[in-house]
Amino acid sequence: MRENKVQRRGLMLVLSSPSGAGKTTISRAILRDDGNLVISISVTTRAPRPGEVPGKDYHFIAETEFKRMVAAKELLEHAKVFDNYYGTPKVYVESQLAAGKDVLFDIDWQGTKRLKDSARGDLVSVFILPPSIIELERRLRGRAQDSEDVMRKRMARASDEMSHWPEYEYIVINRDVDESIAQVKSILTTERLRRERQVGLADFVNGLRSES
Amino acid sequence: MRENKVQRRGLMLVLSSPSGAGKTTISRAILRDDGNLVISISVTTRAPRPGEVPGKDYHFIAETEFKRMVAAKELLEHAKVFDNYYGTPKVYVESQLAAGKDVLFDIDWQGTKRLKDSARGDLVSVFILPPSIIELERRLRGRAQDSEDVMRKRMARASDEMSHWPEYEYIVINRDVDESIAQVKSILTTERLRRERQVGLADFVNGLRSES
Repeated sequence: MRENKVQRRGLMLVLSSPSGAGKTTISRAILRDDGNLVISISVTTRAPRPGEVPGKDYHFIAETEFKRMVAAKELLEHAKVFDNYYGTPKVYVESQLAAGKDVLFDIDWQGTKRLKDSARGDLVSVFILPPSIIELERRLRGRAQDSEDVMRKRMARASDEMSHWPEYEYIVINRDVDESIAQVKSILTTERLRRERQVGLADFVNGLRSES
Repeated sequence: MRENKVQRRGLMLVLSSPSGAGKTTISRAILRDDGNLVISISVTTRAPRPGEVPGKDYHFIAETEFKRMVAAKELLEHAKVFDNYYGTPKVYVESQLAAGKDVLFDIDWQGTKRLKDSARGDLVSVFILPPSIIELERRLRGRAQDSEDVMRKRMARASDEMSHWPEYEYIVINRDVDESIAQVKSILTTERLRRERQVGLADFVNGLRSES
């Protein structure tokens, strides 16, 4: 019997949500449990926030370096959010996809929109919603010791981000974090089973049929 | 806080495979474990095989009754396979979908093709392949005490059915039955998370945003 291998083509899994919806917890869990998934680390010109680890949360770079990367076409997508620039380095993503790895992107609606243009059929987009506004406020407060004014700005930004849910393929309402993790894992499993992502199926089936 | 309910619209999950690929085992397992999934029972004019239960495996009906159903447009799809007619009664499927249930179809490529025409966006199609020709032969032999001639015909039919894999969205290679069951469950979970299948999302998000 001929041995025909069916292999996967790497896909790009985008998770977006307003901050406070639980996206970071979900991302970490699926990255921990899935041996074939790696995360794309964005570059940004903003300063690290307390607790953020350079090279893990972001690559923190100077604006001159950012502009050089844009000019050299080293970014898959980039955008300005308030006064800061954000972008996705191309070389890491492309080398991982070529090696058959799937790549997770923790980016906002602007990044997703721009990524779609360069991703062709490789992109799978998921939007995570909070279960209620009370829960969203609770989570935003829980992690910040900010003034009412800063909180109001965050809530307004969350509201703006949430308005972009119709641009995503899958919607996960994060009522229970374990259930949401299981749902995002299901999306990944399923998208890997798409006919067009399983390279070598034609040879595999021809092998089965020629011997029938 | 307004309570906006997000509900699901029922979907049609088609499982096809050559006989001997493990489809029946997989169907039974997901029907057992999923409280929101029901199976569509086909009508057929062929005689019951040993072990088949009327009203469970098929509705066994006379050819005159079959032709009456076709004329009265009571079938979602129908086809002739060798000398026998097969069809999918419409009223059961439509009432289940309307009640928010998902419906499983254990039908061949012909049935799937015709179902697609009436299903609009509701159809999700999965093709199950055997892991190898040796395994397929083993399973076909295991359950039949048939002559070599009958076996050859079955293998030829399996080969013909397998040639239709490119018409399906998802391909599951049944290497391990528990893994295949988990994969089909993932497909069901994922397809339920599609934005367009979650009815009421716009109101839900507007409710979140109006209070932000």
